[in-house]
Amino acid sequence: MQSFEIDKTDLLRIETALQGNDAELESVLKEYHASEIALLFERLPQEAKERIINILPTDIASEVISEMDEEHRPGELLINLDPEKRQEIVEELDYDDATDIISQLDEDEQQEILEDLDEEDAESIRALMKYPEDTAGGIMNSEIVKVNINLEKKDALDEIIRQSEEMEEFYTVYVVDDHDILQGILSIKNILKAKADAHVRELVNTDFVFVKAEMDQEDVAGLISQYNLTTIPVVDDNMKLLGRVTVDDIIDVMEQESTEDILKFSGVSEDEELSGNWKDAVKSRLPWLVINLATAYLAASVIRHFDSTVTLIAPIAAYMTIIAGMGGNAATQALAVTVRRISLNDLTDKQSYNAVLKEFLVGLLNGAANGLIVFFIAWFYDSDPMLGLVLFLAMTGNLVVAGLTGASIPLILKRVGIDPAVASSIIITTFTDCAGFFLPLWFASKLLLDSHHHLIHH
Amino acid sequence: MQSFEIDKTDLLRIETALQGNDAELESVLKEYHASEIALLFERLPQEAKERIINILPTDIASEVISEMDEEHRPGELLINLDPEKRQEIVEELDYDDATDIISQLDEDEQQEILEDLDEEDAESIRALMKYPEDTAGGIMNSEIVKVNINLEKKDALDEIIRQSEEMEEFYTVYVVDDHDILQGILSIKNILKAKADAHVRELVNTDFVFVKAEMDQEDVAGLISQYNLTTIPVVDDNMKLLGRVTVDDIIDVMEQESTEDILKFSGVSEDEELSGNWKDAVKSRLPWLVINLATAYLAASVIRHFDSTVTLIAPIAAYMTIIAGMGGNAATQALAVTVRRISLNDLTDKQSYNAVLKEFLVGLLNGAANGLIVFFIAWFYDSDPMLGLVLFLAMTGNLVVAGLTGASIPLILKRVGIDPAVASSIIITTFTDCAGFFLPLWFASKLLLDSHHHLIHH
Repeated sequence: MQSFEIDKTDLLRIETALQGNDAELESVLKEYHASEIALLFERLPQEAKERIINILPTDIASEVISEMDEEHRPGELLINLDPEKRQEIVEELDYDDATDIISQLDEDEQQEILEDLDEEDAESIRALMKYPEDTAGGIMNSEIVKVNINLEKKDALDEIIRQSEEMEEFYTVYVVDDHDILQGILSIKNILKAKADAHVRELVNTDFVFVKAEMDQEDVAGLISQYNLTTIPVVDDNMKLLGRVTVDDIIDVMEQESTEDILKFSGVSEDEELSGNWKDAVKSRLPWLVINLATAYLAASVIRHFDSTVTLIAPIAAYMTIIAGMGGNAATQALAVTVRRISLNDLTDKQSYNAVLKEFLVGLLNGAANGLIVFFIAWFYDSDPMLGLVLFLAMTGNLVVAGLTGASIPLILKRVGIDPAVASSIIITTFTDCAGFFLPLWFASKLLLDSHHHLIHH
Repeated sequence: MQSFEIDKTDLLRIETALQGNDAELESVLKEYHASEIALLFERLPQEAKERIINILPTDIASEVISEMDEEHRPGELLINLDPEKRQEIVEELDYDDATDIISQLDEDEQQEILEDLDEEDAESIRALMKYPEDTAGGIMNSEIVKVNINLEKKDALDEIIRQSEEMEEFYTVYVVDDHDILQGILSIKNILKAKADAHVRELVNTDFVFVKAEMDQEDVAGLISQYNLTTIPVVDDNMKLLGRVTVDDIIDVMEQESTEDILKFSGVSEDEELSGNWKDAVKSRLPWLVINLATAYLAASVIRHFDSTVTLIAPIAAYMTIIAGMGGNAATQALAVTVRRISLNDLTDKQSYNAVLKEFLVGLLNGAANGLIVFFIAWFYDSDPMLGLVLFLAMTGNLVVAGLTGASIPLILKRVGIDPAVASSIIITTFTDCAGFFLPLWFASKLLLDSHHHLIHH
């Protein structure tokens, strides 16, 4: 989704500037946004990155580091910097970004960085490090603007301006009581409009959505999306305000989930890093392939059961692969639609039933359409209308199997608590392979061999 | 991603309340957020929806309608309402939402709704209807807070409060000149902090990101994500400010793109509506299946070329389906990782080369691992180590083909300007099917038949 694409010109400019002195490099770097430099970093060697970070003003340097993709190890870059520069950069980072980056490092290295920070910053980061990375607590930011519910308008406004001084942007002002218990949300518009003697208590909106720190990040994204929020407060079990999750964190979550969905759907472990090395890729994919191999043997055993049919009617070996393959394709189509509807929570019980019925119909029609094509090819090309009939029946039957399993297996898996995106495709392919081999061979053994039709032919 | 799941209890409550009088229904509805009512609407008949909309306060009713999924036809609900109620609701809607909903209707119906509105609203909606739905202009909102660059602090603040009166929330104040040409962005924090005699001109931030109205919504999402924006201004070719796109619109775009990615990847037209009927599904999927059928014939022709090998070595028919199937699985894995990296713009030329090399290695290793398994099975179960060798070589070879094509085909398609998510999988499966049949049959014909090994066996 990133729109700035590094082209060779940009990379060449930076590489040329790296040959020159610091002043030249600095002037070239000025033309790039921090997030663009972060992208360029993906293609630069470690020394170049360190030199650039040292040259950049601290605020830009820290933004570059926070924009770097986790896969490109911003933590390693940080730990190799001169301690003083490093401290400046970490203090400039948002707590949630600092926490993510520091969490990547070994415990010794984490200590080394945290010791240099002032006590308050170090404490805040340590507190955030307790929450798993994929929960509300893990993605929240603890730098927020909050005012006490007992303040008057003028004091509250002063407080808001003072607190927002240290922040790039604030979206929401939170209202708390003396014990930091969240009471509600204050709209800037309302406080600006209010009379001079108004109290926060009269202006606060107490009807708001919040999340607990342990909530899974995907559920947080769901709430933000459903209620069209820009930010959501994060609280502990006593409703004490811990921080907030902003919508830009959610965009990263959604991109990550979208990657995981595609990977899971394709039999790749959702944890495989896209730019990981070959060892990780083998480790992530081999187990899946071995399970596939086992199911492939299951399907192949159907063929071996019909060894004599295959020997007597040679073209059936070629045709059955077509029918099994087409079943797999049709099942993947039905599966993709169903899995997506499940993940969008778009299916009630009645709708689930209708979805299966729809896929049955679609399978029947697409099966008959493709069945007719293979029927005519067998008739005119193989001059064998009976073989055509066998193939028509097998194709239609297998695409019905594909539609039924493609829609029902993920629904069944969901009901028993298994992630349908992961396990569905292998189960369904087993069905369409087995049926794709069984149907043509069985129809052939009944319709072609029993009538001695082929024995005469050949 | 929606977190509020309609369970039977909620639906039952509403259905029971629908039996009662309006006051009862009203009190039950009060307990639901507008977005929750929109979800409940997916399961209610048309009359019930109309009755509920008529009972709800106008602001809630319009929010419900704007939250309804396009697939559930909010436009039809609107057109069937009493004209007065309808007018109130449309006037309460954001212009971008009103435009989306009205665009769904026939031209007559559109006219009917627009005629009832006051001239200004109707004009704004007509202007928005000119932009295609999936561009910045199509998703932007034209209700914005903007101030003239020549204003003083106090006038600017008054203006901001006045304009934001009509809006639920504002994120950004835009600064324009006398001709509505965008000059920059004003931070609320800065204007609050500024001295009383400060001018907007001194406070405006002129370093900002903007988009043209024609920009594709996916690119807008990319910019918002890359630069961590909550909102982005939309301008025409003369830099005249037209509206803004907010990050919550982008979340919808991302959800939609994620659906399209999964569908395209699975050979379903990206335009197929998830809850569409069977006719649409057949129309969307049949063409793809027919193309697949053609490629399946191509692969099957490889088998027919080896008819005599199949007849002489019956088990090879079963084994070749295993090898072709495993190739397809391994290729899908490599393809998913590559397609996802392409869509995240994560691949330079050098990285593309490395990605292909990595997939070659992964294919070789996973191929050898699975090849060993089939080797031992052929040796011990079929008592035929030579057949085992044939299968080992074919499996390794086909998984190398899978890795190489899985990584390189999408890269090649991207270079020639074809969407890799759509066309890759069919091309790659053709390769792995052809190689998956050719390799075992060819090795068998060389190693098993030439030595008369099997002829003696059987």
